[in-house]
Amino acid sequence: MSTLTLEALPLTAEAFRPYGDVIEVGDRFAVINRGTTRHYPDLAKIDVDAQGGRTRVSLYHVMPYDLPLEVAMLERHPLSSQLFMPLDDAAFLVVVAAKDADTIAPEAVRAFLTNGRQGVNYHAGTWHHPVIALDRETDFLVVDRSGSGRNCDEFHFDEGARITVRLAGR
Amino acid sequence: MSTLTLEALPLTAEAFRPYGDVIEVGDRFAVINRGTTRHYPDLAKIDVDAQGGRTRVSLYHVMPYDLPLEVAMLERHPLSSQLFMPLDDAAFLVVVAAKDADTIAPEAVRAFLTNGRQGVNYHAGTWHHPVIALDRETDFLVVDRSGSGRNCDEFHFDEGARITVRLAGR
Repeated sequence: MSTLTLEALPLTAEAFRPYGDVIEVGDRFAVINRGTTRHYPDLAKIDVDAQGGRTRVSLYHVMPYDLPLEVAMLERHPLSSQLFMPLDDAAFLVVVAAKDADTIAPEAVRAFLTNGRQGVNYHAGTWHHPVIALDRETDFLVVDRSGSGRNCDEFHFDEGARITVRLAGR
Repeated sequence: MSTLTLEALPLTAEAFRPYGDVIEVGDRFAVINRGTTRHYPDLAKIDVDAQGGRTRVSLYHVMPYDLPLEVAMLERHPLSSQLFMPLDDAAFLVVVAAKDADTIAPEAVRAFLTNGRQGVNYHAGTWHHPVIALDRETDFLVVDRSGSGRNCDEFHFDEGARITVRLAGR
């Protein structure tokens, strides 16, 4: 039995770059609509065109997880990106591993905690845990792909490998 | 001088069908992710492919408008849809007119008030007012198009035609 305990780190665009995009306001914006609106453009690489796919918009209503989280599996969408934006100023937990590998070493798993205003966009092929709400039921706007082709792989860790994610102070 | 006063109606999918989609939870969902998540799929027709366009995701930070609103102009995006989802349980005002017309009679203008949890997706060509936040600064996730081609027309009403939008009780 091997055990690995991760503490989730604060999510930043830089730390998340190998996995995808962080959806958040930054320094780069344009003032539009006669001064009423700041526009922060082009915050995510939406990648849905493979095999004739198209952009799909959904709502997810997610129950909160208990902590600490035991990570038994991750999934990936080889054909498309997948974006999650919380609708209620809700921090959530993001667990990922590098893309372009068909197996995942427990040591390659990373955990991030969002600040409540941030969303994430997993790039095509990034291994990630199904969406993890914290503390309360949370709604997300999700932007991913509709189309043909096999677009969900799962990786299940060995039963002897126990991966636990904690939050600081919890 | 002609004057027209509209009272904004509660937004419903049925009333909004000529203009676009209402992004909200409904009766149709799938339970996914081992029972933790309700998935309400495919809530908007994202239409961005004209002239080699692609899906663009932005954040808008919008200042509140004063009421009543004087509608001096509407705009349309002939090449693409445009989706607005509020991130803070924030009601906002939606002012539209039918697509497929190059001029707009004041009597064709419609006004809707969202319930705070709803977003909207204007279909390509629907005339609409720039986004109208109410009461407080509001953040929106916006899904529209990046690409070449002229994709914004404006229609300015005659100065003699005064169109005013009110909310019930305000």
